[in-house]
Amino acid sequence: MKALVYITPKEGILDPQGLTVGKALRNLGMKQVADVRIGKYVEIDLPKTKRKKAEEITKQACDRLLANPNIEAYRFEIVEDG
Amino acid sequence: MKALVYITPKEGILDPQGLTVGKALRNLGMKQVADVRIGKYVEIDLPKTKRKKAEEITKQACDRLLANPNIEAYRFEIVEDG
Repeated sequence: MKALVYITPKEGILDPQGLTVGKALRNLGMKQVADVRIGKYVEIDLPKTKRKKAEEITKQACDRLLANPNIEAYRFEIVEDG
Repeated sequence: MKALVYITPKEGILDPQGLTVGKALRNLGMKQVADVRIGKYVEIDLPKTKRKKAEEITKQACDRLLANPNIEAYRFEIVEDG
């Protein structure tokens, strides 16, 4: 299995990188761009692991290492390899 | 519309951050973890923009600012707001 993890700044948390990128895109002529939020995207290969176990491991990986619970929210999906 | 953009290191490009995180997860006891790849996840709000235009803008944003074409690949999806 493969875990696809999306980590984003929590609602209400200032995202200075996102603000800067939004401004830069508008300056490049993309006037339709409003808010931009920048987060992390993590792919975790979990070979020979069943779906339920893969979910457990991914949750643990987010809680114990990948996401800062004070300022970041995460969600993930488990997909078949390949 | 809202664009969800996933930017990852290209195949064959070394990802030292991913290697480090993979090792850390195994050291924390998650032995099933094999490769880890770390990329960026960007959400772009495009209010009052039609799907086709949103796709054009997102492609342009990736090509002109968000992704480094030498070492990064990107994909995106356009979803309804809310």
